[in-house]
Amino acid sequence: MDFIIKGNLCYSEGPECLMTLPGGYLVYAGGVCAGAYGELPQRYAGLPVTDYGDRLILPGFCDLHVHAPQFAYRGLGMDLELIDWLGRRAYPEESKYADLAYADRAYGLFADAMRKSVTTRLCCFATVHAPATLLLMEKLEAAGLMGYVGKVSMDRNAPEPLCECSAGKAAGDCEAWLAKASRRFTRVKPMVTPRFIPACSDALMKRLSALAREYDAPLQSHLSENPKEIKWVRELCPEAKSYADAYDRFGMLGPRTVMAHIVYPEEEEIPLLRDRGITMAHCPASNINLRSGIAPVRKLLTAGVKVGLGTDVAAGQTVDMLRAVTDAVQASKLYWRLTDRSAKALTLAEAFYLGTRGGGAFFGRVGSFEAGYELDAVVLDDSGLPHPQELSVGERVERALYLSGDCKVVEKYVAGKPILNRTDTAGNGA
Amino acid sequence: MDFIIKGNLCYSEGPECLMTLPGGYLVYAGGVCAGAYGELPQRYAGLPVTDYGDRLILPGFCDLHVHAPQFAYRGLGMDLELIDWLGRRAYPEESKYADLAYADRAYGLFADAMRKSVTTRLCCFATVHAPATLLLMEKLEAAGLMGYVGKVSMDRNAPEPLCECSAGKAAGDCEAWLAKASRRFTRVKPMVTPRFIPACSDALMKRLSALAREYDAPLQSHLSENPKEIKWVRELCPEAKSYADAYDRFGMLGPRTVMAHIVYPEEEEIPLLRDRGITMAHCPASNINLRSGIAPVRKLLTAGVKVGLGTDVAAGQTVDMLRAVTDAVQASKLYWRLTDRSAKALTLAEAFYLGTRGGGAFFGRVGSFEAGYELDAVVLDDSGLPHPQELSVGERVERALYLSGDCKVVEKYVAGKPILNRTDTAGNGA
Repeated sequence: MDFIIKGNLCYSEGPECLMTLPGGYLVYAGGVCAGAYGELPQRYAGLPVTDYGDRLILPGFCDLHVHAPQFAYRGLGMDLELIDWLGRRAYPEESKYADLAYADRAYGLFADAMRKSVTTRLCCFATVHAPATLLLMEKLEAAGLMGYVGKVSMDRNAPEPLCECSAGKAAGDCEAWLAKASRRFTRVKPMVTPRFIPACSDALMKRLSALAREYDAPLQSHLSENPKEIKWVRELCPEAKSYADAYDRFGMLGPRTVMAHIVYPEEEEIPLLRDRGITMAHCPASNINLRSGIAPVRKLLTAGVKVGLGTDVAAGQTVDMLRAVTDAVQASKLYWRLTDRSAKALTLAEAFYLGTRGGGAFFGRVGSFEAGYELDAVVLDDSGLPHPQELSVGERVERALYLSGDCKVVEKYVAGKPILNRTDTAGNGA
Repeated sequence: MDFIIKGNLCYSEGPECLMTLPGGYLVYAGGVCAGAYGELPQRYAGLPVTDYGDRLILPGFCDLHVHAPQFAYRGLGMDLELIDWLGRRAYPEESKYADLAYADRAYGLFADAMRKSVTTRLCCFATVHAPATLLLMEKLEAAGLMGYVGKVSMDRNAPEPLCECSAGKAAGDCEAWLAKASRRFTRVKPMVTPRFIPACSDALMKRLSALAREYDAPLQSHLSENPKEIKWVRELCPEAKSYADAYDRFGMLGPRTVMAHIVYPEEEEIPLLRDRGITMAHCPASNINLRSGIAPVRKLLTAGVKVGLGTDVAAGQTVDMLRAVTDAVQASKLYWRLTDRSAKALTLAEAFYLGTRGGGAFFGRVGSFEAGYELDAVVLDDSGLPHPQELSVGERVERALYLSGDCKVVEKYVAGKPILNRTDTAGNGA
C-alpha cells in the first residue's frame, strides 16, 4: 500500500529551517514517510502517484490544547477574564454534555471541523461526563484524526452539575472511563485530565497520577494562565514552592505531560519544566482574548523547554492552527516591544516549527516529512490568494499562514491515511 | 427607485450600543436610508422587498487606511520594522507601478478584493505615479466602492524611482492629478497624500496644503507609528513641538484629515488632534506586524479624538475589516494588561462602532442604519459557522466578527446601490 503524493512541499527541518521542494515527491513506504524528494529516487519509481499539481503540501498541524465542548461557543463571550469566564461561559456550556443527544450534535460539529482543518493530531479536553467523552473519541476516530482525549476530572470549586463531589468518585469515574477508552479505539487514546489545581483536591490528584501510570496514559492540564488564577493556586497550595511544583508533588510532570499556557513562569519553575521534559502548549489567541497576557515563549525555548501550539478553543476563537502560527509570531512581537527587549520575536519559520514538529514530538515522530516520520500531510489550495507577481513556494506558504481564511484544505493524510474526499473543498478553520 | 431589504439587522446606535433587529426591514427611500424597523411602517408597505432570509445585514465597514499597491504582497515579509520595511518591501513593490500593465493587473486584483470584502468606503494610498493612480480610481469606481484615493507625494528620503526630486515637480504632478481626478470620477475622489514627514520637504508640504484647500480635497498621512520613525522626525524637524505639530505648522490638521497609527502620542499632541478635529485611523494588525506597538485608543477616545479603523494592508495582512474589529479588541486587551491598567479594553460593541460609524463619520452620514444615513450595507452568510445551540442575532454577529474567514459576503450596497451579483459568493477578505 505504498504511495507517493506530489506537490509543492514545505516542512521544518529544524526550528530555523523551513525547507521547500517545489513539485516535490512525498513518499509513503513501509507504513511511514520515506522522505521528501525534489526528484523521485529510482527505487520508488513504480509506486502510484497522486499529483496535487500546484497545491501546497504541509505537514499536519498538532493542536496541543483544545476544548471540544467549548467549540459550540467559539467566538462568543470574550469579555471576561479566566475565572469569571469559566463560571459564566465554560461551565454552563460544559454542563450540557450530560445530555448525550446534545453531545452527539455538538461533538459531531467539532469532529467535522477538525476533519476539515489543518490539524492531524490533537490533545483535547472533553467534560467530566464519561459517556459523552467516549462519544467524542468515537467521532474523532471516525473522522480520521489521531491523538488524545481527556475526560475532565474536577472535585472542588466547580458548579454542582460538573463537580464530581468526592475524590473517590472522581477517580473511580476516571478509571472506569480509562478502562473502556483504552480498549475501544485505535487512533484516539485517553489522556488523564485534571482540569487544573483549583478544581482538583490533593486526594484526587494522587489517584489521577497513579491512574496515568497504571494505564500508561499521558496527562494534560493548565499551568500559570492568569494572574488571578495563579494567586488562587498560591492560596490553595501554601506548601507548594510554585504552581508547577503543585503538580510536581503528585508526580504529574513528565515527558508525557502537556501543560497549557505557562504565561507567568517563575524563574525556578523553568528548569523544573525543562528537567521533567513536559511539553508546553502555547495558546497565544486564548491568552489575549482572556486578557491573561503573553507567554514568554522565547525564554522557555532558550531554557530548553519543549513547546508546541494550541488553539485553546473557545478561549481561542478558532481551531485553525495556521492562524495559531501567525498569532504566535504576532504575540511574540508585542512581548518584545512591550515587555522584554531581550526576547527576540519568533520568526515565522520558528512558529511553523512549533505548530508542526515542535508539538508533533509529543506524539512520536510526527510533524515533518523526513524519512521515518509518520505521514501526516495537509494539501492546501491557496488559489483564493491571487497575486500579480511570481511567488516562491516559501512565500506562498507564508501568505497561507497569514491569510488562512482564504485557503482551503483539499486533502489531509493522517498516518498515511487520506481522510477527506478529493471533492471536499470545505474551508479550514470552520 | 426606493426599496427595502429584509434580514437580521445589526448596527451601532452609539459606541456602547449595538442594536439588533431579527428579521428587520431596512428602508431605502429618497436616496438615503429611511431607517431600520422591526415591523414595516405602513407608509413603506408598497416598496419592493429583497428578502435575505436568515442572513446577517451589517452597515458597510469603512477602511480608513489601506495601501492599494501593497495588496500584492499582503501576508509577506513581516520580519522588519517600519523604516527597513519601507526600504526593503514597500518601496520596491511600489516602484513597479510606473508600469501601467503591472498596475492594471495588480489594481484589478485589489479592486476585486475590495468589492468582495465587507468594506464600502475607504481612504486609500496609491503610489507617486499619477497614471496608475487614475487607473486605480477607475477600477474602484467600477467596482462600486466609494471613498478617497491619494497619489502619494514624496520628494526626499525615498529611493530614486519613487522620489519626485523637487518640491516643485512633486506639487506640479499632484496638482495635475488633482485636476484630472476631481473631474473624472463620481464615487471615488482624490485625497492629498504626503506620505509622511520624513519623505516630504517643507516646501512640498506648503504646496500640498495649499492644493488641498484649493481643490477642496481631504488629506491623509501617517503620524507617530514607530519609535525609530518618531526619532527621525524629531531630528528632521527640530523646530516642531511634536510630530503632530510638524503637520500642523503646514495647516494639515483639520476635520478632513485622516492620520494613520498615532501609536505614541505625546501628552500635548492629544488636545491638538482633538481640537483640529482630525480622524485617527487605528490599524492594530499593522502596528503588531511591524512591531510598532499598540496605540492607546482608549486614551484618545476619552480625550475626544475621532477614531476609525484601518487595515493598513500590507503592513496589516488582510483587507478584512471584520478582523480589524476583533484585532482592535485584542490589541486593547494587551495594552490594558501590559502597558496601562487604567486603559479599559475596547468592548466588541465599541470596536464595531469604530469600524462602521466611527470611521464612517469621515465620509458624512455613513456607517449606521439610522434614518438619514447613506445606505451602505453588507449581507453576510454565516452558515459556515454551524452551532448546536440557539444563538441570538447579536451572538451570530459577534461570532462572524471573530471568525470572518468562515463567512461570505453575498451582497453589498454602497449608497443604496447593490454591487455584487446575487450569485457571487466569493469569500470576504480575499
